[in-house]
Amino acid sequence: MTHVSIIGTGTMGQAIADVVTSGGSTVETLGRADAGTTPSGDVVVLAVPYPALAQVLADHGDGLAGKVVVDITNPLDFETFDSLVVPADSSAAAALAAALPQSHVLKAFNTTFAATLAGRTIGSLPTTVLIAGDDADAKALLAGVVEAGGLKAVDAGALSRARELEALGFLQLTLAVGGKLPWTGGFGVVA
Amino acid sequence: MTHVSIIGTGTMGQAIADVVTSGGSTVETLGRADAGTTPSGDVVVLAVPYPALAQVLADHGDGLAGKVVVDITNPLDFETFDSLVVPADSSAAAALAAALPQSHVLKAFNTTFAATLAGRTIGSLPTTVLIAGDDADAKALLAGVVEAGGLKAVDAGALSRARELEALGFLQLTLAVGGKLPWTGGFGVVA
Repeated sequence: MTHVSIIGTGTMGQAIADVVTSGGSTVETLGRADAGTTPSGDVVVLAVPYPALAQVLADHGDGLAGKVVVDITNPLDFETFDSLVVPADSSAAAALAAALPQSHVLKAFNTTFAATLAGRTIGSLPTTVLIAGDDADAKALLAGVVEAGGLKAVDAGALSRARELEALGFLQLTLAVGGKLPWTGGFGVVA
Repeated sequence: MTHVSIIGTGTMGQAIADVVTSGGSTVETLGRADAGTTPSGDVVVLAVPYPALAQVLADHGDGLAGKVVVDITNPLDFETFDSLVVPADSSAAAALAAALPQSHVLKAFNTTFAATLAGRTIGSLPTTVLIAGDDADAKALLAGVVEAGGLKAVDAGALSRARELEALGFLQLTLAVGGKLPWTGGFGVVA
């Protein structure tokens, strides 16, 4: 059993909380009113849109030392939906890891729409969470929580692969916004 | 009916040729011995590994003017499988388009393993070819060939989205090489 803090009360945060609790782990949810509160979880999911990450760091950054911190963001230019706003040779997750040198930062959940987390399936496939990170124990911890909650997990490699995960999330979002894919679908993993 | 030239005789070229002909279009296949031959197809698929693209351009570049040219490559560093060898803010397809200003360059087939083209399915899903390009007519022409051959096609947007398609292809290859995904699987599109 793992204790998980989820910062963010939107649809992604709610869907991830349901996965965590249905797998027997415990959840603490923190919203904007909880600025300054030190998250109690061993795993802290930053379930906020990319533009809110800086404020989350300001509010909670000191309390993230020693924890597994999960970045779920897709750092799109939400005005144009035509580019990412992070440097082309980096990622939101890499920037977060640089800002949190005492945390184990993972990239996960950015390629799974909320509906596919809530329903545990994408079409006829089990929903698969791709997890990138540099710490094998941290990845295994999150994978265990995810799998206990009824999803599949795949180790997507080092945190440097967050760049590709963010490209995948970007592509998937542009296709959904453009009506080419439904918000209940997207890229499923066929293992 | 479309006449398609396929440059390259490997598994990807063979699988694409089968898709084309089973849909009622015609195929000419060109191998290394055909250097200097002007491709006769209205659509020319460069079904070669990324490191061979430069030689293909040297051999056939002049004959590609006015044609729809399809880049299927994944420009990986095949020694490390840890990065792409094109600039982070560009793509193999963008470089190809710059080298072929009189052609309509499309990115396609780089996210579908050969087995999923040959079998028309990825797991329980129909195999979907993601097509990026700046010319709508060119994309529609290729989509028609692909769909007649028993696959699905999705318009993935402008040629600038080739960067994300190449990231997706890269990620999928690293997962397959690492044993995390089978060569008959990968990322399926759930529409």
